[in-house]
Amino acid sequence: MTLPFDGAITRYLNDGAPDAVRKAIEKADKDDILAEDWHWKERLHRKDYKSHMEDLQRQLVRMAADLKATGKRVLVVFEGRDAAGKGGTINVIRENLNPRVANVVALSAPNERERGEWYFQRYVARLPAAGEMALFDRSWYNRGVVEQVFGFCTPAERERFFHQVPDFERMLVEEGITLVKLWLNVSRAEQLRRFLAREGDPLKQWKLSRVDVEGLALWDDYTDAIAETLDRSHTDVAPWTVIRSDDKRRARIAAVQTVLRAVDYEDRDDALIGEPDPRIAGGPELRG
Amino acid sequence: MTLPFDGAITRYLNDGAPDAVRKAIEKADKDDILAEDWHWKERLHRKDYKSHMEDLQRQLVRMAADLKATGKRVLVVFEGRDAAGKGGTINVIRENLNPRVANVVALSAPNERERGEWYFQRYVARLPAAGEMALFDRSWYNRGVVEQVFGFCTPAERERFFHQVPDFERMLVEEGITLVKLWLNVSRAEQLRRFLAREGDPLKQWKLSRVDVEGLALWDDYTDAIAETLDRSHTDVAPWTVIRSDDKRRARIAAVQTVLRAVDYEDRDDALIGEPDPRIAGGPELRG
Amino acid sequence: MTLPFDGAITRYLNDGAPDAVRKAIEKADKDDILAEDWHWKERLHRKDYKSHMEDLQRQLVRMAADLKATGKRVLVVFEGRDAAGKGGTINVIRENLNPRVANVVALSAPNERERGEWYFQRYVARLPAAGEMALFDRSWYNRGVVEQVFGFCTPAERERFFHQVPDFERMLVEEGITLVKLWLNVSRAEQLRRFLAREGDPLKQWKLSRVDVEGLALWDDYTDAIAETLDRSHTDVAPWTVIRSDDKRRARIAAVQTVLRAVDYEDRDDALIGEPDPRIAGGPELRG
Amino acid sequence: MTLPFDGAITRYLNDGAPDAVRKAIEKADKDDILAEDWHWKERLHRKDYKSHMEDLQRQLVRMAADLKATGKRVLVVFEGRDAAGKGGTINVIRENLNPRVANVVALSAPNERERGEWYFQRYVARLPAAGEMALFDRSWYNRGVVEQVFGFCTPAERERFFHQVPDFERMLVEEGITLVKLWLNVSRAEQLRRFLAREGDPLKQWKLSRVDVEGLALWDDYTDAIAETLDRSHTDVAPWTVIRSDDKRRARIAAVQTVLRAVDYEDRDDALIGEPDPRIAGGPELRG
Ligand SMILES: Nc1ncnc2c1ncn2[C@@H]1O[C@H](COP(=O)(O)OP(=O)(O)O)[C@@H](O)[C@H]1O
Ligand SMILES: Nc1ncnc2c1ncn2[C@@H]1O[C@H](COP(=O)(O)OP(=O)(O)O)[C@@H](O)[C@H]1O
Ligand SMILES: Nc1ncnc2c1ncn2[C@@H]1O[C@H](COP(=O)(O)OP(=O)(O)O)[C@@H](O)[C@H]1O
Ligand SMILES: Nc1ncnc2c1ncn2[C@@H]1O[C@H](COP(=O)(O)O)[C@@H](O)[C@H]1O
Repeated sequence: MTLPFDGAITRYLNDGAPDAVRKAIEKADKDDILAEDWHWKERLHRKDYKSHMEDLQRQLVRMAADLKATGKRVLVVFEGRDAAGKGGTINVIRENLNPRVANVVALSAPNERERGEWYFQRYVARLPAAGEMALFDRSWYNRGVVEQVFGFCTPAERERFFHQVPDFERMLVEEGITLVKLWLNVSRAEQLRRFLAREGDPLKQWKLSRVDVEGLALWDDYTDAIAETLDRSHTDVAPWTVIRSDDKRRARIAAVQTVLRAVDYEDRDDALIGEPDPRIAGGPELRG
Repeated sequence: MTLPFDGAITRYLNDGAPDAVRKAIEKADKDDILAEDWHWKERLHRKDYKSHMEDLQRQLVRMAADLKATGKRVLVVFEGRDAAGKGGTINVIRENLNPRVANVVALSAPNERERGEWYFQRYVARLPAAGEMALFDRSWYNRGVVEQVFGFCTPAERERFFHQVPDFERMLVEEGITLVKLWLNVSRAEQLRRFLAREGDPLKQWKLSRVDVEGLALWDDYTDAIAETLDRSHTDVAPWTVIRSDDKRRARIAAVQTVLRAVDYEDRDDALIGEPDPRIAGGPELRG
Repeated sequence: MTLPFDGAITRYLNDGAPDAVRKAIEKADKDDILAEDWHWKERLHRKDYKSHMEDLQRQLVRMAADLKATGKRVLVVFEGRDAAGKGGTINVIRENLNPRVANVVALSAPNERERGEWYFQRYVARLPAAGEMALFDRSWYNRGVVEQVFGFCTPAERERFFHQVPDFERMLVEEGITLVKLWLNVSRAEQLRRFLAREGDPLKQWKLSRVDVEGLALWDDYTDAIAETLDRSHTDVAPWTVIRSDDKRRARIAAVQTVLRAVDYEDRDDALIGEPDPRIAGGPELRG
Repeated sequence: MTLPFDGAITRYLNDGAPDAVRKAIEKADKDDILAEDWHWKERLHRKDYKSHMEDLQRQLVRMAADLKATGKRVLVVFEGRDAAGKGGTINVIRENLNPRVANVVALSAPNERERGEWYFQRYVARLPAAGEMALFDRSWYNRGVVEQVFGFCTPAERERFFHQVPDFERMLVEEGITLVKLWLNVSRAEQLRRFLAREGDPLKQWKLSRVDVEGLALWDDYTDAIAETLDRSHTDVAPWTVIRSDDKRRARIAAVQTVLRAVDYEDRDDALIGEPDPRIAGGPELRG
């Protein structure tokens, strides 16, 4: 099997990664959590995950029915480092939902015309209509992180972005859109472990892009860009929920809980939903 | 548990359904295929399904990479009676694909403005761009079937639709879009069995709409509308593949095979893909 | 000739209009200005108008060439009471411009779907692209005035509008769009005189709508809504230029001057353009 | 004054133009018609033009009122060589019409994304909605002529265009859109005379583009491309009206007459409109 990018991920594991990261990966069992400061050593047991998730799925179905019936609008932004689990979490949410209600918005890099537009314009065109929930797989926050790390925007553009984003989001909220912003967090070792898994899995190799490979050496640049982004866009009206995602199961449960608790739908069962675990989901301080 | 539509599906099973249908459902085992004229009595074994599907998934990933690299465009139309399995088949296809390549298009009923437009206009706006594959969960064929059965369009509008559809599709094909039209077929008993399952499953109740419930008694109207639609839109340039879907597993394999064989991508492995089984997938004659 | 709305305008002149208004109209000559507090008694002489306007037209052509060459974007909002002269002023501006550069955006009342969207959304879709100048014949300010006077929006929606509009406009400006907001002002007598002219002119009758006719009796409601709108949306970053338009010629010159001076284009000739006359063009205080 | 393209038009007059063309221009009076085979020597007298045009304008206003009232849709395509008079004719038509009814569509050259779309897609997005009349300043016929002459499309793309265009237009017509296709024709000498006027007029210099200048030497290529285009797209359902436009006045009258007679509106007064003069307006044979 030819590896994507000529095995650049494996090479990075051997030659580029910090020792601690490499060792953490090498000695870990399948169920072990790699992040150092976690409360749990292992990921949530499958059974516990399934039983809780089933309840949550039923609530999601109710919520979607309510959106359709009442015309409410929900927009969920999924952000986070590559391999943090954005796509998988989106799939869990839409799994049982009517595709005419829940739609995924995954925009590609802006084209020539779009680069000449107001930065938020192409996102505005995809805001949820009445009765819809839009799930944004990445969003305008590209400008805060990846565009900064790779120099795809100028410092002035980024400054402007930070200046505008609180007002932009406030307007959406005032307009009655329920805006949920989820930042999926992943440790350095876990990210690399997932990249390695992708490298070796023909089904997942597409998930690796030049940006990911070159990003390996840029971990600290990402860290800085993320810190600044969270700081400057965590507002009262549109706060971030950071979700620690080294354990995908706990992370998905927390993500769905957060979405459900943000929407005010008929017969919402808060006891059944439960509170997101504060060791998993919280404010920007959780980004570690 | 309150049943959707006050248990109209169960009531129909007991009071409205033809005897043969009711009996077929009552005596069937979980794995039994209900359609009478099937070659197999049971659905495909799980293991056989999984192993074949895994190969197909890898091919899908390759195909998507090729689309992205070459800018090819693919449009797959999923049609069929309610509960025939459109949504599930779409999920199988997009499961491992980059959401920036494969996007689902599930349009709601046309609004006021759209009703004043060229019928195909809102679909044209969602055609795949270069490097994309659009998966249409229902399509312009609404006019051929559901709009006819429920009187949502005039006979003149429908006539015009049939007149235009071959040329419209030919243009897309000439323009270089690979157009795949899949018609998922389901027997009357199997459809009712699935409706019953939805009725009783809180996760699936959203899938039942007024259209489904009222459609129960309109099986023959649907049959007529489908026959005419297939007849009048099965062209050399944009032929239908009818897929008998009483067994979801065999149907999904045939659907993916059909899509893969329609796209001309690098390293396509026809031996590994295999030919769709002619007892499952074929032309309009298969609609039974 | 049948009069539109069964001669409601003439009827209003005779039965509804304040005496002073009726008299001002009855005794006025063609060239007389009706507004009471004007510095001039007559409108600008045709020759003076033509010679100045010709210079301005050349500057407009240069400006447009510069937009195309540099990719700059300009958005001019035309607002004002009915019959204030929005359409005519727009025509003067676009007269000699490439339609691929200068385009008129005249949106109709929002449809069902649009009413479920973010209020600014359909306007955002029509923002100028690089190298373009969009001329908005009415705009989001409908919510400030006509929607208020006729109850087309709720008080809460209007409050939200005022809350959002400064930030919305600031974003456009920060994004590099040159935003010019022109409010054309017209006296009560002059408006009625123009309505009468429209009523009697088969070429202009289309300009009369139900909104105009019913608006006659609502002059004071308009006055209040306008005052509040100007007050609450006149910001440093996106100020209003109010243009007294009882004399169309002076008004058009001032409007073009304002637009030209707002855009920073090559070889702009400020001496030739001249300063807008402060008795014609100024801030909200000019609305009289 | 610096001439655009360094005086390339004048240079062409002196050095490149056929003798007959140059002489025709040099000896002509302002009112003379340059085309050789015209029935008239001079252009229509101003007064005759004005009085007829006034009647036509009233009819246009009625037509527009009818569109708005009934929701009918009209699309008028304006094509022809550069300087044939497309823009001016459009202005005459929209002069007295509500901009919310009659809108001009003048698309720029396709961008990167649009080049990856179905060729007709960006035009479809701008089709008239109910109650609207769209005036297309150039159209999909770019592919027939300018793209051919300048090599902006491949021969295969052009072939496909011709193959598709009759069906595409038939669909619009079947859909109830009144489609009027006007081809404005201009003689070689008259075109050059107009280019010279533009070259020397600061208000019109923007109308000269690289395409125009380089096109001068390509007159015959244009002639061939036009002949083929008219031949292959003049269909029963969407016929061309060729309008000889050396005399702008006669041409504009014929254009408006053609539009009015194509739309079926209340109180259409055919006697007042009159028949387009067959020496001015006719089928493809008129292209000369
Ligand atoms: N030239 C660019 N300008 C702006 N954004 C870019 C550019 N190239 C890539 N991006 C963005 O960077 C993000 C990350 O890219 P990548 O890792 O390739 O995608 P994915 O999120 O699909 O894994 C994407 O949202 C992409 O749109
Ligand atoms: N029901 C409505 N809801 C919101 N806006 C409306 C409604 N009806 C009319 N309007 C708006 O009021 C404005 C004035 O209407 P009118 O005087 O008929 O149009 P015009 O500006 O073309 O003369 C228009 O911009 C129109 O969109
Ligand atoms: N690279 C290109 N590809 C396709 N079409 C083009 C290209 N460049 C110019 N055109 C088209 O050629 C036509 C004529 O161009 P031009 O004479 O510059 O414009 P105008 O019609 O505004 O005078 C326009 O419709 C333009 O879109
Ligand atoms: N009034 C309507 N006009 C046209 N199509 C409709 C209408 N109502 C429902 N449909 C379509 O019928 C299909 C089945 O509807 P449903 O089962 O409710 O999802 C969907 O594609 C709807 O868009």
